[in-house]
Amino acid sequence: MMTNPRYTPLIEGLPAKVPFVGPEAQERAQGYAFAARLGANESVFGPSPHAIAAMEAAAREVWMYGDPENHTLRHALASHHAVAPENIVVGEGIDGLLGYLVRLLVAEGDAVVTSLGAYPTFLYHVTGYGGKVTAVPYKGDHEDPEALLAAARATDAKLLYLANPDNPMGTWHKAEVITQLIAALPERTVLILDEAYADTAPADAIPAMDVHHPRVIRMRTFSKAYGLAGLRVGYAIGHPDIVRAFDKIRNHFGVGRIAQAGALAALQDQIHLTATVQKITQARAEIARIATANGLHPVPSATNFVALDCGRDGAYAAALLKELAARGVFIRMPSVAPFNRTIRISCGDGPMLAHLEAELPKALAALESLTPPRR
Amino acid sequence: MMTNPRYTPLIEGLPAKVPFVGPEAQERAQGYAFAARLGANESVFGPSPHAIAAMEAAAREVWMYGDPENHTLRHALASHHAVAPENIVVGEGIDGLLGYLVRLLVAEGDAVVTSLGAYPTFLYHVTGYGGKVTAVPYKGDHEDPEALLAAARATDAKLLYLANPDNPMGTWHKAEVITQLIAALPERTVLILDEAYADTAPADAIPAMDVHHPRVIRMRTFSKAYGLAGLRVGYAIGHPDIVRAFDKIRNHFGVGRIAQAGALAALQDQIHLTATVQKITQARAEIARIATANGLHPVPSATNFVALDCGRDGAYAAALLKELAARGVFIRMPSVAPFNRTIRISCGDGPMLAHLEAELPKALAALESLTPPRR
Repeated sequence: MMTNPRYTPLIEGLPAKVPFVGPEAQERAQGYAFAARLGANESVFGPSPHAIAAMEAAAREVWMYGDPENHTLRHALASHHAVAPENIVVGEGIDGLLGYLVRLLVAEGDAVVTSLGAYPTFLYHVTGYGGKVTAVPYKGDHEDPEALLAAARATDAKLLYLANPDNPMGTWHKAEVITQLIAALPERTVLILDEAYADTAPADAIPAMDVHHPRVIRMRTFSKAYGLAGLRVGYAIGHPDIVRAFDKIRNHFGVGRIAQAGALAALQDQIHLTATVQKITQARAEIARIATANGLHPVPSATNFVALDCGRDGAYAAALLKELAARGVFIRMPSVAPFNRTIRISCGDGPMLAHLEAELPKALAALESLTPPRR
Repeated sequence: MMTNPRYTPLIEGLPAKVPFVGPEAQERAQGYAFAARLGANESVFGPSPHAIAAMEAAAREVWMYGDPENHTLRHALASHHAVAPENIVVGEGIDGLLGYLVRLLVAEGDAVVTSLGAYPTFLYHVTGYGGKVTAVPYKGDHEDPEALLAAARATDAKLLYLANPDNPMGTWHKAEVITQLIAALPERTVLILDEAYADTAPADAIPAMDVHHPRVIRMRTFSKAYGLAGLRVGYAIGHPDIVRAFDKIRNHFGVGRIAQAGALAALQDQIHLTATVQKITQARAEIARIATANGLHPVPSATNFVALDCGRDGAYAAALLKELAARGVFIRMPSVAPFNRTIRISCGDGPMLAHLEAELPKALAALESLTPPRR
């Protein structure tokens, strides 16, 4: 009578523990709020005031479902990128779109290639659909296109994931490197080009839009430079055939009315976006300055965060994270060696970075007694 | 070089055409907006003013991701239903939660039982994961628990779906019928009890909360009586084990910051909910009055809509839908016989129902010349 549900064998095999822990969970555990929320690569500079106004107006008509076709937003995005609306699918953040794309392509045992230490949510989805992941080491602090291609060929990969600029290191490749990767893409492989950080990257890092390739799909988000992380709106750009495939499985009403309205107004305020990117650029420099003054080495970044090389091992960086959390600073760090020698600091505003500047030396000093100096 | 992506065989077999057409698509096609939006079972009476204020406040901090654990909302829901937070999972509407649950249980070829003509989105998900659906006829205008149970036994179903109150007919069973169904549930079957319309139902239609059964999961939403359809927040209530299983696959950041804040404030304003349910009850009576005055027969409803029996066939009802759309009235109808003899009208406010009252006789008259009278 009281037997358990018959989960699929795939589900039975998935880990019960998941990698999604928000700063709120840490705050609840420690009993106080963070003074500097610098761990989730959000944009403290906020969205356009027009986006806020649009969301407020939409809140008053949220008794209505949003348009399941995201028509107006999709058309505006198409116009912005000089492609057709048929090249765009809007979804519940890049996270949601990655889940859909994996579901479209990956059955149990199918091969997928990514970089070792790259975006954990992508791995979560691939594992969730039973994909077999090959994770290619970075080359220095950069994802390694040649090694990724070789792995895709060797494993007959259905999917190859590359983020440019990269997370968690913040590094980037020039557009021609990406274009060469696309030219060399195996015939049986789809490339996901995660461009969540395209807006904060140098112009020469982002290839021109080309929606003719049937196996290249690029992903963008309103969560980073647009300052709308909590709204959950991302989109994918690609060939109409692959874009249309999402319609077979997506949650058609998943991007609600406020989300569509906020994203649209944010897109339409490119002046605010430009001003935000300037603030992000300044904050990157400020983080680098604070790091250097404290003997840490900033990794050059094209994103809205900076990875700081602590010059020691993962245990040291983890201990530093803990010391900073105890001092009201929320940051995160990569989980995989050799990148776990770094801590990752999102671009904060003046008060947040002042707090970081005040607390970082204390946190480092607290660790001194605990760890031997690096040779 | 230009070969197509290798979709999974399951995806290749899915229909490209999907059943999700919003009123916005109709409005774009016809070139004018509907005066009476009465087709999507939304609540024109709107959410609590406190919910609107909470969403506006959240819009100003939406640069932050929402809490992936939905902690505050989950705890408030647990308290509201007198269960533990471990009994609640929050998701992107019931639509999103149905998708997750199907994914947890249904592999290709697995049997699922539902009612013929019941919620199309559930079917969409089951088909999307390769489930084999057995659709049991209603008994009169009610879903048929005994026949559903027999079908679940006969097919060794992994999932049995029942909505109480029902959509699209609006009918309901008393709580003891549901309790008996649960008592007789086959050991190998999970029951989804879709209670999207619980808030508008008579108290004796809703069984007491009981979270001890490992194979019963109940789903609720903020989209109907709470007036937040465009926000996309639903939740499931069940045994901690099945609730925990969602964490293996759900989009952890999928319910954003504004969504969590709006739902929480709506939940906390039960006075507004009660007032809304009163308005819905009045609107149901008003729709019934208008229908009867025009020779249509209202099906008794426990939901925020009323199905009107036109006494003819599906072609007639479809033609009536079209005539009403031409007169600014957006409504929908069931797609399956014998329910396609009805049209489904959501509870509107005064002006919308006045518009309906003015236009319905004209639409009926326009059809007179086209169709023979019913014998």
